[in-house]
Formats: sequence, structure tokens, C-alpha cells
Amino acid sequence: MPNGTTNVCLIGNKFMGRAHANAYLKVNKFFTNLPSQAVMHTVVGRNVEENQTFANRWGFKNTSNDWKAAIRNPEIDLVDVTSPNNAHAEMSIAALEAGKHVACEKPLAGSLDDARAMRDAARKAKKQKTSVWYVYRRCPAVALAHQLVKEGRLGRIYHVRAYYLQDWAGPDVPLIWRFSRKVSGSGAHGDLGAHIIDMARFVTGDEFDSVNGCITETFIKEREIPQAGSKGGIAAGAAGGTAKKGKVDVDDATLFLARLKGGAACTFESTRFATGNQNKNGLEINGEKGAIMFNFEDMNHLNFYDRTIDRKVQGWTSIMATHGGSHPYADAWWPDAHIIGYEHSFINQTADILSVLGGKPPVVPLPDFEDAWKTQQVLEAAFLSAKEDRTVKISEIK
Amino acid sequence: MPNGTTNVCLIGNKFMGRAHANAYLKVNKFFTNLPSQAVMHTVVGRNVEENQTFANRWGFKNTSNDWKAAIRNPEIDLVDVTSPNNAHAEMSIAALEAGKHVACEKPLAGSLDDARAMRDAARKAKKQKTSVWYVYRRCPAVALAHQLVKEGRLGRIYHVRAYYLQDWAGPDVPLIWRFSRKVSGSGAHGDLGAHIIDMARFVTGDEFDSVNGCITETFIKEREIPQAGSKGGIAAGAAGGTAKKGKVDVDDATLFLARLKGGAACTFESTRFATGNQNKNGLEINGEKGAIMFNFEDMNHLNFYDRTIDRKVQGWTSIMATHGGSHPYADAWWPDAHIIGYEHSFINQTADILSVLGGKPPVVPLPDFEDAWKTQQVLEAAFLSAKEDRTVKISEIK
Amino acid sequence: MPNGTTNVCLIGNKFMGRAHANAYLKVNKFFTNLPSQAVMHTVVGRNVEENQTFANRWGFKNTSNDWKAAIRNPEIDLVDVTSPNNAHAEMSIAALEAGKHVACEKPLAGSLDDARAMRDAARKAKKQKTSVWYVYRRCPAVALAHQLVKEGRLGRIYHVRAYYLQDWAGPDVPLIWRFSRKVSGSGAHGDLGAHIIDMARFVTGDEFDSVNGCITETFIKEREIPQAGSKGGIAAGAAGGTAKKGKVDVDDATLFLARLKGGAACTFESTRFATGNQNKNGLEINGEKGAIMFNFEDMNHLNFYDRTIDRKVQGWTSIMATHGGSHPYADAWWPDAHIIGYEHSFINQTADILSVLGGKPPVVPLPDFEDAWKTQQVLEAAFLSAKEDRTVKISEIK
Amino acid sequence: MPNGTTNVCLIGNKFMGRAHANAYLKVNKFFTNLPSQAVMHTVVGRNVEENQTFANRWGFKNTSNDWKAAIRNPEIDLVDVTSPNNAHAEMSIAALEAGKHVACEKPLAGSLDDARAMRDAARKAKKQKTSVWYVYRRCPAVALAHQLVKEGRLGRIYHVRAYYLQDWAGPDVPLIWRFSRKVSGSGAHGDLGAHIIDMARFVTGDEFDSVNGCITETFIKEREIPQAGSKGGIAAGAAGGTAKKGKVDVDDATLFLARLKGGAACTFESTRFATGNQNKNGLEINGEKGAIMFNFEDMNHLNFYDRTIDRKVQGWTSIMATHGGSHPYADAWWPDAHIIGYEHSFINQTADILSVLGGKPPVVPLPDFEDAWKTQQVLEAAFLSAKEDRTVKISEIK
Repeated sequence: MPNGTTNVCLIGNKFMGRAHANAYLKVNKFFTNLPSQAVMHTVVGRNVEENQTFANRWGFKNTSNDWKAAIRNPEIDLVDVTSPNNAHAEMSIAALEAGKHVACEKPLAGSLDDARAMRDAARKAKKQKTSVWYVYRRCPAVALAHQLVKEGRLGRIYHVRAYYLQDWAGPDVPLIWRFSRKVSGSGAHGDLGAHIIDMARFVTGDEFDSVNGCITETFIKEREIPQAGSKGGIAAGAAGGTAKKGKVDVDDATLFLARLKGGAACTFESTRFATGNQNKNGLEINGEKGAIMFNFEDMNHLNFYDRTIDRKVQGWTSIMATHGGSHPYADAWWPDAHIIGYEHSFINQTADILSVLGGKPPVVPLPDFEDAWKTQQVLEAAFLSAKEDRTVKISEIK
Repeated sequence: MPNGTTNVCLIGNKFMGRAHANAYLKVNKFFTNLPSQAVMHTVVGRNVEENQTFANRWGFKNTSNDWKAAIRNPEIDLVDVTSPNNAHAEMSIAALEAGKHVACEKPLAGSLDDARAMRDAARKAKKQKTSVWYVYRRCPAVALAHQLVKEGRLGRIYHVRAYYLQDWAGPDVPLIWRFSRKVSGSGAHGDLGAHIIDMARFVTGDEFDSVNGCITETFIKEREIPQAGSKGGIAAGAAGGTAKKGKVDVDDATLFLARLKGGAACTFESTRFATGNQNKNGLEINGEKGAIMFNFEDMNHLNFYDRTIDRKVQGWTSIMATHGGSHPYADAWWPDAHIIGYEHSFINQTADILSVLGGKPPVVPLPDFEDAWKTQQVLEAAFLSAKEDRTVKISEIK
Repeated sequence: MPNGTTNVCLIGNKFMGRAHANAYLKVNKFFTNLPSQAVMHTVVGRNVEENQTFANRWGFKNTSNDWKAAIRNPEIDLVDVTSPNNAHAEMSIAALEAGKHVACEKPLAGSLDDARAMRDAARKAKKQKTSVWYVYRRCPAVALAHQLVKEGRLGRIYHVRAYYLQDWAGPDVPLIWRFSRKVSGSGAHGDLGAHIIDMARFVTGDEFDSVNGCITETFIKEREIPQAGSKGGIAAGAAGGTAKKGKVDVDDATLFLARLKGGAACTFESTRFATGNQNKNGLEINGEKGAIMFNFEDMNHLNFYDRTIDRKVQGWTSIMATHGGSHPYADAWWPDAHIIGYEHSFINQTADILSVLGGKPPVVPLPDFEDAWKTQQVLEAAFLSAKEDRTVKISEIK
Repeated sequence: MPNGTTNVCLIGNKFMGRAHANAYLKVNKFFTNLPSQAVMHTVVGRNVEENQTFANRWGFKNTSNDWKAAIRNPEIDLVDVTSPNNAHAEMSIAALEAGKHVACEKPLAGSLDDARAMRDAARKAKKQKTSVWYVYRRCPAVALAHQLVKEGRLGRIYHVRAYYLQDWAGPDVPLIWRFSRKVSGSGAHGDLGAHIIDMARFVTGDEFDSVNGCITETFIKEREIPQAGSKGGIAAGAAGGTAKKGKVDVDDATLFLARLKGGAACTFESTRFATGNQNKNGLEINGEKGAIMFNFEDMNHLNFYDRTIDRKVQGWTSIMATHGGSHPYADAWWPDAHIIGYEHSFINQTADILSVLGGKPPVVPLPDFEDAWKTQQVLEAAFLSAKEDRTVKISEIK
């Protein structure tokens, strides 16, 4: 059993709140050698009744609808921010200033200014740890890809092909918060593109040099104002539309080309209109010595091509990344090929957060605000490339 | 929130104990309309210290190393038996006699006599509910297959092809309990074959008529006696072997042919020696109007072939069974294509157990002891067919 | 260019006649180092007009409706028999007696007596070469599997799982020749099962010890007598049915269990009722050190699992067997991953026949009548096992 | 049998010459209702000896090393140009001026000026038919995709994702003609990109509006001058390198973003450096009502997603496009699921050329020079977009 405890203040009780609460609930039951025990101390939300229901369900000891007070509670060790993107900066900075560790949902922020401020606050707060929930790094197959690249098994990287394809945003979906720039900062780009930019940086170990062209598109320009009421899932808030329409001011899809510093030529595509693909978060990397392919819909497998072996038996190897002793995080879970799912990436991330807070190394690198700022730069560079119709160097984004 | 509570006494704190505890922990947090709340009341195990660790980790209120006393506690509503197969009968029957509901791990028992006694005890205990953890029924894709067959989408069934392929039992694995007839009753047949027999019955809605030939094989006749110490997973207990060897007296693989009452001609294969397949629990059914294919290693998908549509677009459709509102159990979980894993089948089963105990129908039929007895008959018929080298009618197994 | 020529007399101008003619047409154009050039000398068929049309189309110099005369023509080197199974023996034996080489379609014969006579005739005809068109051996992926096993990459073989699944024989298909025992000898068993038995023998390099149970089934007992007229493909002859029905006296599906001499435990299934599978000719072999999987519908790939490499990167490798210099037959064809199809297996076989006739080794072993007799024994043993409801040793089939 | 004949003059006897000769050899043997019979009249090449060998092998009646004379022969009906890209214009235009029909390899030309001149020559030659060998249109699965889109099964198209991934051009490959701008016009872009641009236009039925950013990259800037001698396949001419190096002046990879006139947002990527992918020519299209995915390495299948059916059974359907009566070109070939390969797309195209020459409609539209000019415009627009770092409207390319 862990010696210490980590008291968590979770801000937000919606879809992401549930995923995080589940992670706190389970982490120490499966990762039995962590330096501390996560404690669900306080959940913060606007609606008192919803807060209480959430707390009862998940086992939070306290609730609050005053986040400023909640995060200042001296008992709190870690503030976990799952509020809409436009609130990330204020909350995270306040938490850092209150001396707390912060784990913030992705993307780092809804605007570049916010993101920069968060990065700066994190730089100042030298004693605290920050992290961002780019959880796909912790799918075992993605973590394995990172390890294989790090071992030199791909050699010089020629190409990255990254895509995050969803298809839920048909014309009938009403104007929920995800279609509002004010709340979200952007549409598919910040929601989905942020993940694949982070994954590409994480797995290649390289950084972006430039964005070399970008299309950003809103296919459905107007949508019905949603009725009061709530629905779960990605399209949360959509209990059906009303006759009145409002304008969509975020991107439905953003596609861009990029170069990495090491010379790789890359395509990135994020969209909510890729009919047939509900959550195809994919990454392909082709190197001189080998290649990898990953697709979240088949998240337990990593496809690996080893160009260095006997040509007779070369091919794509589908590695089921569930083998204890060989694959990252696998020891915590079930026997070989007894697969894990979406929620486990959150639990794996929570385990690494607890490790890092306890002074132990994470299984694979945990993105902090400094790291997430780099992803934010790429998001910004892409939009600027679309706006100004030109190549944008990442170094222009300051 | 549920009105009532269901106090659970869990017997066993090993691999299956963990899977069940995780299910009790999560079920009411994700299935929010169940008639009662699962309460982890007591965990029973032989080793006092292990019990305490397990109880602390999972939140059991009490521990016991006296199962007979524990199950009689008037506070207990449900006894959950995850002990070795040779203890199923004694524990389950005692629990029924004590007036408890019983959920027993599969197979129903390690011997036909035990299974028959359990069936008879369940018949007598008219007020109590029994169930058996044939959890693969509750993979959403398998439950969907059941529904599609029930809707008549396959028509007359010609073939069932079922296989449960693992490969962990190489010559280096020592003589753990899974290789002992006394403890397990059988090897691959009862461990893996029981699942695919149950799935075939569940999905087709048909019953076995006969076993028409059977090969049962022990590839590695002797194995090293295991060292003291413990290792998790399927090969639990295997901390490495010693120089001394002992005899394996169970099957490493069992293959049989069968006919269903409706006329289908079937193959069944269960093995621990199918190199390359760590948990390929597969079911294929070909009918006059359509067909299905399922493989646990890709558990979120059901493959469906509809022979009744325009030939031009006929083909195998890979259905990601994660859509809330359309697919069984999907509403409880994550957004579309945010996949679930092995452990979720246990949680889904627990939800249905709580439904049934509360007088509500399960999402898909829950196997009780009467039902599991039929699977046991087929297991027995297969061994008899191998032994006597002839076709065995299921009706011979009484 | 080849020095010599091989004058071919092709008996049969239907579906198989076309596949063979295409092979003679192409073989020397793609395999440019063969010891001789195939010459389409004479085509034999019952219908004079059809013969002439066929000869004109494919370039046969002569036609004949008198096979006995045709094969005796001193100019003929090779007699290729694609007539119905019940004519294989008479024609092949006469050709051998006339001093010709013989290439006969599979299965060797429609009856065991015929097969034995053919084997004996081949034994006597010491100067001539016989071969049987078990063409799937010459899918490059299957030939590669044979080579990998031969190199010892699988080690001791535990399991063979072979299935040949088609679905064309629904209740509406009339009573064509394929449903007649007199003409075909058997149904799915001889048509499809013969292929997978041959492939299993070829790839494992092992022989059958026994058939341990068999189901043979005719799902549709009566079918409409076909109208005059002809349709191509598998169901040739089916221009639609008439009101009158006749009895089906062959198997729609045959399933059996078997053991190889080396100890492998095996399942075999051949059926025309596996809805959704039009030509799924599959072979899976699990060995101590590795495993292979092949499925004709994806014929350019061999799946290979290497258990001897670093566990971290173990998995099923999908080998595209099209690489010149590495993969069997690939040098003759197109660039890497420019895939080949069904007909190429015939051309590859023709190349090997010409090699063998010219005294050069084939790329992989070519089945002669002696070899095909062993496959015939297994076919017979399976039917006997079904009939007598017992295990049948192959050595009983004499 | 066809009434007339079409005398073909084939220019070129290398890799493509072989693929075309094979098509002429086979087309009337499999497509038995064409209006004319292809006759291999004359093959043209520089090397007299190679010409003769080629003619002997394939059955050409005449050879010539004077293309200008050969194409003027009054017996010739159709001139087939498979020479390097820089010779397409001169030869095609001369052939048109000589009153011949022309079938030219893709891309239309190595330069825009050449392509324009060819288009203009075709416009003038009103009595003759032109066609370009964009053969992937005639993979049955691609032709089926075209038909499904035309039937309205995809609705409004949101996205096209096209990629042609090869990996043969590692640093060890010497400086063959494919790396020379003078001969080829471009590298991966014209070689591979031309195919996917054509396929996207063909399947969507839409035209490009603009190229919105482009990366063009030469990873290996210098390569060894090849030794004399020849090797087949894609890297023809590569018998190994010498110590002397020369400059590569074409692209190894070209990636671009584009918009179609109907509003679709698209990514295109062509590369010879996508390790692990030898011939992954892929096309994905997402529409409002449905979606398709195609990948040449699995060329017999089309993946189709129908969003209009019951959500319960929605998914990607893998259609084996081999069913006679339902799928384009399937009647000419083998029984269902007896798959075809790369070479069949050439034969299918030849069948359609013969149909068009005989006044009959092709199975799916055949690209003429006018059509191929539009693909050439997109190729050019992409390079211009890369050069000028801006969006380029297709209408700018004149």
C-alpha cells in the first residue's frame, strides 16, 4: 500500500469528470506500488445537486460550487481541471499560485494567450508539478511505439501521417458548446488535432518546424439552438434542437501539412465529418529502418514493420500490447490479450501523475505545461497558416 | 440511485476475485438505474493476510477465512463463488441452503455429479436466483449477435465454428493448479471449452443434440512442480519450476464435432497450445439468411453478413458495438468507439445480476444453474465421446 | 527461350479447361527460364462446336471428341485431365499406358478403387511423370509457409485448423453435376476437403495418422432438376431449375477431426453452406516455436508468428509474399505488392510441371499420383469414420 | 467472336510493355462479347534484339525501332504509348496526326506544355479516340465505388483522403530514370500522385477547385550512378550502383491539401519512402450518407459504410467485388472470391478501349486526353502551390 495520500480537487462533473473520477477510483487498486494513494477529496461544479449526486456516486468526500475556495483548501494536493477550455488558464494559474499541483485537461488552453500564461505560471511554480491529460500517450500500444522509436528501431523518420476521424457532427446535431469558439477555443482542431499533434511529438521524439499549408472548414454553418436538457457523450447537451438557429464559429475539420525539425514530411487531419469513423485516432510513422501504425479503435494493438530483418518474413506485425513484463502498463491489468479500453488510458495517466508527484519516474514521459505549450504552438501555427495562406514557422508563435 | 442494497459475500481473492471486486466497485457508478446497489460486504479466502490486503484495496467491510460461517451471515444477500472448480458445488449448495442467491464462476462444476447436485439444489431453492459467470455473453458484440439471431436475421443455422485459442502452456510452465484434475476437473475443455459451448447455445438459441467425435490431448505429459510463491494472471502460482516433475492429468486441448437439435453441424476447439493466439475466443455462425463472426481479441466488433440485401453491397460488416441507444450495454459506457475491455463483461454481468435480483429483466438472458447444467452435459458428452470413440447423444448424459 | 516443347492434350473445355488453357498461354511468357515451351496441341471435348470455339479462343491447334485417339497421338507429350472425377482413372491410366506424362485435376479420383488403380499405373509407368492440380500449394504464401516449416521455424506442431468455406449451394441452386455422387464421387469433401488435406500435408510435411470422428451432412436433400443450358463458374450447368426434383446424394459439408503422425490434433471442415464465405480456404498451424495462418481470400499474404523473438515485438506478421528474390514464384510476376490472383496458382503449377518434365526441380514439391493417393486415403478414412462412428487409422485404407 | 480486329502498335517493351502485351493477349479470351479482337501487330523499341525477344514471347507479328514509321503503317488502328513521360507528347500527337487511335500511359505527360499540346491534338482529331492508362479505375472495387457514388449512396462529400505509399526508394537504390526530371517530369508526384488524383476525380465525380498547400521533398539528394545492366520491376535499370554519384532532381514525396468544387476538404500524399507499404494506393471518401475506403493491396475488396441503415447493424462492410452479375468486370473472370490481381486492371481497361473503339460504352468511364489534362492541372497546381507557398486555383493552370 502507498505510504502517503494525494488529495484531489476535481473541477468538473461531466463526461471528463466521470473519466477522471473512475481513474482515481481504480488507480491504486491496479497499480499497487505507487508512492501515494489518490483520495477523492472535493468535486467542484456549478450545480449543487449535480455535484452531490456525482460525489455520492464516486465517493468524493466534499463538494463545492466555489472553485476558488475549493482549490485553496490546504488539504488539497492536486487540482484537476476538466472545465471548458476557456477556463483552464484562470483555474490552473490560481491553483499553481495556491501552491497546488495541477493536472489540466487538453488542450492546454482555448487561446494562445491563455496557454502562454499557463506555461509561465508553471515555470514560476517551481515546487509544483503540472500535467496535461493527453491520455493517448498512455495507451500501451502508443507508449510502446514511443519506446521502439527511442530504441532507434525506426531510424531517420521520413513521414508522419496523423488523423483523428469522428463523424458525430451531422447537420442534425444542435449548437452545443463544442461548436462555440468562446467556450471551446476551436472545434475539431483543438479537440482532436491537439491529441494527434501531441502523439506525433511524443512518439517521434521530434518537434515541429513548420506548418506548410492548412485547410480549416465549417461544413455546417448554422445549427439549431439546443433545448434545455442534457445528453451524455461527445455531443453532451444535445437533447434535441429548437426551431431557432445560431452560427457555428469553430472548425468542423482542420487539415494541415507540416515538417518536423528532423525533416519528416507530415499530414494531419482532424474532423467530425469522417462518416464511418467514430473515433479513429490514427498515427503512422515511416522511418528508414522501420515503421509503426496505430489506430485507437484497435487500441490494444501496435502495428510494427521491421525493415532490418530477413526480407522473407518482413511484414506488418500486429503486436497485442498486453503482455506483462514486456509492454508498458500491462502488468497492472489483465492476462495477455484480455484487452483494456478507453478508460484505462486515464487510469494509466493517473498512475504516472502519482508517480511523478511521489518523485518516481513515469512509465513514459508525462506532458507538463511546458510540453503542452509546444502542442499549442502547432495548433496556432496551423490556424495562422490557413489565415495567411502561407507556411508558418513554429518559431513565429511566441 | 438504487433504493436497496445487495450485500455480497465474495469467496476467493485471486485473479477472478479481482475481476469480480472490480465489477462490484463500478457497477452502480455506470449503470445508474439498477434496482439495488452492490455492497462489498465480506471477502472470504484462506490466507488471513491476503484477505485483509484484498479487503483494504477493494473496500470490503469484512473478511473471513471460514466460508461456511461467512455465507450464513444474515446480512449477506448474494454469495459469489470464485473458488476452484472442485469447491463450487459444496459452497453453492450451502449458500442456497442458507437462503442466499448464488453467482458461481464457470464451469458450473468440475464434475458431472457436482453439477447435477448444484442444478438440483437450485431447483429446490425456489426463492433464490442462481447465475453463472459465463461473462462473454455480455460482451456487447456477443449480446448483439444473440439479438440478431433472435430477430431471425440468420434464418436456419447450418454451421457453428467455435474455438478458444490460448498459447500460454508451453513446456516451461510448471505444474500449476490448472494442470490438476482434482482441482480443476479438466484442462482446456472446462476452462475454455465451457465458454464457447455456452456462447454457441446463447447465440444460436439452440441446444446440442450430440457430440460426434472428440480428440482430447495432453501435449506435455509432465511438468516441473512449481516453487512456492505466486504469479498473477492465467498461470497464477507459477513462480518458476523446480527440478522435480509431476504428471499432468488434464487435457491441454480438446476438439470435438457436434450437431445441434436444429441440424447445425459444428466444430469446437479449446486449446492452450495455439501459438500466436493469446485469447482468441471465437464464434462463427452461418445461417440461411446471414452469418456472424466474433473474436474476443477484437471484442468491440461483431462481424455480420446479411445475405438478404442487394448482392452488390453484400459483405462482412464490422459493427463497432458501442453505440448508445443501439447496442446492448453501450449506454452505460463511453462515447461511440471509445472501446471497452475484458473487465466490462464482468461489470455488465453484475448489472444484470442486480437487475434479476431486483425483479427486472436482464439485457440478455443470464445463465442460471439449470442453463449451465446443459453446458456441463456437453462438456461431459465430449469426454465420453473421446473415451468410447463414438457419437454421444446429449440425452445420454443425465 | 526454352529449347524444347511440350505438346499438351487438354481433356475438358469447361471451367477448369479455361484455367488450364490460360496457364499454358502464359507460363513461358512469365517464367522465361523453363526447360521447355508449352504448346496447346489438342483440346478434347464431347461437343464439336464447343471444342472449336475453345480451340479458336485459346490457340489449340487441334480438337477432338475422341479422347482415346487424341491421347495416343505420338506428338502429344502431356495429357491434362480436367474431366469429371469419375473419368480421371480411365483417362489417366490410358494416357500412362500410351506413354504420356499426365497432369490430372484433383481429387485424384472419385472413388478409392479408381485412385488406387491410378497410383498403381503411375508406379508402373516409370518413365513418365504424373502430377495432380492441387494448385493452392503454389499460392506463393502457401509455398512460403511450406518453406518456413521446413526451415524449422514452427518446431513441433501442436495443431492444424483447416477449413474450406463456400456458400454458393443455397436451396435455389438446381441439381447440377456437383450434387451427383456418380459424377463427382462426393460433394464438398472431395471438392474442397481434398484441397485442405493436401495443403495440410504439404505445409506440415507430416502425414495423417487417423481420422477421429466425422460429420457428413446434406442440408438440402432434394433439388430441382436443372434446365438445359449452361452457366459458368462453380455452379456450371445451372441455368435455372425445373419443377421436377431429384435427390442429392453427396455431402454439402464434411467436418472431421484428425491426428497427424507427429502428434498434431486437427480440425478439418469443408462446406458449401458457410454463408458469408465465398472461397475461404484457410489453414492455421500452431507449433512450438511459431505459427502460420493463411486464407485464400487474402491469398497474397501469409500470417506468421515467431515465438522466438523478443516478446515485446512478437505478434502476427502479415507477409505480402510478392517480393522477388525472397518469395516463391515472385520473380515471375509483378513488382512488390502488385498482387496476383487465383489463376496464377495454375500458372505457377504449370511452370513446375514443365520444370519437372525437363528434369529440373520444382520450386516446391509437386504432388504426383503417389502423393495424391495419400490425400485420397484421408478422404476415404473420413467417410468411413462417419459411417462406422469410430476412429479410423489411415493405415486401414488400402 | 468479335467481328473486326484492332491492330495495335505498342511502343515500349519494358515493365509497362509487358503489362500491356499481357492485356492484349488475354482480353478477348475473357471478354467474349467485345466488338473487335485485339491483334498484336507491331512492337516498337530501341534495341532490335530486345524487340525481337519481346515479339517472340508475346506474339507480335512485327517489330520496329523506328516509331515514326511504325505508327504510320496503314494497318495500325491503335498506337499504345508506354515510352518515358517525356516522349508521350511527340508520339501521341504524331499518332493522332497519322489518324490513329491512341492509348497513352499515365501521367498524360511529363510537363504541362506537353499535356496541353496532347489535349489540343486530341480535340482536333475528332474521329479518333484517346485514352490514358489510369488503370486503377478498373479495379472492380474502384469501379464499384464510382457506381455507388453515382447512385447517390454517399450524398454530399465532406472528405477525400488519398495516399499512394511505396517504400522502394531507400538510399541504396541508384540513380535510375525514375529519379530524373528530364525523363520522368517528376518523381512520386507524377508516378503515384497522378493515380490518386485521377481516382479521386473518378470516384467522387467532382473536380478540384484548388490546391491549398503542398510539401514536395527529396529525402535522398544524391544517388549512385547505376551500372550498365538491367533489373525488372519498379526500380528497372538498377543493377547496382557505382562509386560516382549524381543529383536527384525529382520529388521523393509530395503531399498536398485540396478542395473539390463541391466543397470537400482533401489530403493527398504520394511517396516512395513510406516504409512498410509497398503499393498502398488508398482512397477514402466520407459523405453525408455513406463512405468508402479502398486500398490496392487488398484490391478485391471495397469497404463501404452505409449511414442510412438501422444504426444497430451499421459498420464498414467489406465487399468482395468478384460477384458476376453484381460487380463491374466480374463476369469476365473467375468464380466468386477467386480473386484477381494487378494485371487484371490492364485487361479490364483494354476491354473498355476495344468497346469504345467499337462504339460501345465502357463499363465505367474511360479517361481520354481531355480528362487526363484535368489531372495534369492538379499535378501542376500542387507544384506551384509548393513553389509559391500559397493556395493555387486549378483555374490558374491553363
